[in-house]
Amino acid sequence: MEIIRIPRIMREITRDLRTKSKSIGFVPTMGALHEGHLSLIRRAKDENDISIVSIFVNPKQFLAGEDFEKYPRDVESDKEKLIRLGIDYLFLPDTDSLYPNGYSTYVNVEGLSEKLCGKFRPGHFRGVATVVCKLFNLVRPTRAYFGQKDYQQSLIIKRMIEDLNFDTELIICPTMREEDGLAMSSRNSYLNEREREAATVIFKALKAGEAMLKEYKTPQEATQKMLEILKSQPLVTEIQYVGVYDPLNLEEVKEKQEKYLLAIAVKIGQTRLIDNVLIY
Amino acid sequence: MEIIRIPRIMREITRDLRTKSKSIGFVPTMGALHEGHLSLIRRAKDENDISIVSIFVNPKQFLAGEDFEKYPRDVESDKEKLIRLGIDYLFLPDTDSLYPNGYSTYVNVEGLSEKLCGKFRPGHFRGVATVVCKLFNLVRPTRAYFGQKDYQQSLIIKRMIEDLNFDTELIICPTMREEDGLAMSSRNSYLNEREREAATVIFKALKAGEAMLKEYKTPQEATQKMLEILKSQPLVTEIQYVGVYDPLNLEEVKEKQEKYLLAIAVKIGQTRLIDNVLIY
Repeated sequence: MEIIRIPRIMREITRDLRTKSKSIGFVPTMGALHEGHLSLIRRAKDENDISIVSIFVNPKQFLAGEDFEKYPRDVESDKEKLIRLGIDYLFLPDTDSLYPNGYSTYVNVEGLSEKLCGKFRPGHFRGVATVVCKLFNLVRPTRAYFGQKDYQQSLIIKRMIEDLNFDTELIICPTMREEDGLAMSSRNSYLNEREREAATVIFKALKAGEAMLKEYKTPQEATQKMLEILKSQPLVTEIQYVGVYDPLNLEEVKEKQEKYLLAIAVKIGQTRLIDNVLIY
Repeated sequence: MEIIRIPRIMREITRDLRTKSKSIGFVPTMGALHEGHLSLIRRAKDENDISIVSIFVNPKQFLAGEDFEKYPRDVESDKEKLIRLGIDYLFLPDTDSLYPNGYSTYVNVEGLSEKLCGKFRPGHFRGVATVVCKLFNLVRPTRAYFGQKDYQQSLIIKRMIEDLNFDTELIICPTMREEDGLAMSSRNSYLNEREREAATVIFKALKAGEAMLKEYKTPQEATQKMLEILKSQPLVTEIQYVGVYDPLNLEEVKEKQEKYLLAIAVKIGQTRLIDNVLIY
């Protein structure tokens, strides 16, 4: 595995690869790789000639007061995992090389970015879209792999790819879960033992909501059920949103329809966690 | 010359060209081609294996109440000019293909976009950066050619290329002028005979300002001189800005320095015209 730190070098390598008609599978990450990441990375490797993973904790997608400083970083262990998977390139830029002095260009997907998580993290998805646009220009992926766990993010990147005419196929991969159902997330490492146990309430609520909808209950009834379950757990210190949404535009669903996104964002103690389930 | 109307087809052609290591020279235009455009297009052809010109009157860079509807369009005459120059591809998309229903992604270069013309045309440069980002993804230019007449636009595109890591070299070409000094512009066609004569005052003012600075007068004195000249012309119905600016950040220059941008935006009758001179 070759480790590339300089954006210009990364771009020269991928320019050369595309000249040779190699397909490039790309997984952008913030590191602290868990089985969720690894499932995307395996697919990127299987489905393309060349596999590239980036690790970059992107300051532009953290708000003031969020966990940018303490976000888990373990590059040595990440490298070992990537080498074991046989990844071709690890792109590992530093912050100054992606955001030099005077940096001032931002990509924003309006509408979708203001909903759900966007209400509680204003500017977050602008930071995501901006860094992904940069990474796409440097890595020139044939296919880029994102996890369904960050469903809103995937939807925003899909919209950006279409709107800005990127020559990249977006592939959304299923959420990986711990045995008790908790969605894998680098932020799970913030949880103490009691919080870790309490966090299972999120997926329990989603499954209960899903069951309601499958029994032809209304979206309101399903939401009410999920809310009750979340409220029954005392370590849920804040419920940011819980509900049934349209998977295409993230609007709250009032009437019965064919497809639903059930989504939740809560704080368990101090730790903000999100999860979702799609009904298609 | 091949005429391409479908964005996806344009992207497939340039993907193939880059695979064959062909260099692509690109001139994005809004049509109504004059000698200013043609000077860029000749360079794009001379300096690259393949030359591509786009014609697209971009609605996103016009404000409500501006001249989008009446902007001069003469595609048949434009085509003839491009064929005579031996251009390889004309990219001629329609509005719906570049901005389909639900379009919502915008690229903004903060800071630079709010100065000079940006003060009077809020949102204009966001529209420019967005369409150029899209065109770059479709055309994959090795080199893109812009005119110095739209100096602020060139500076913003340069910043966007660097910030978003586009693999494109920006080439800024000198302003082409009529015999009496008026900068060539598609909007000159709006002027009646008296206004056309009056419009020469813009370049006269710039040359007077330039002469002052070369005689070691202060930027304030040069600005004062330009202002007087503009005010002496009764058909100048509005002076939006006139002054001496830093060519790198477009800030007004108070002290003597090495490099200056002298820039003017005025209305002659109902027609808004801009021009500038660089002292390097």
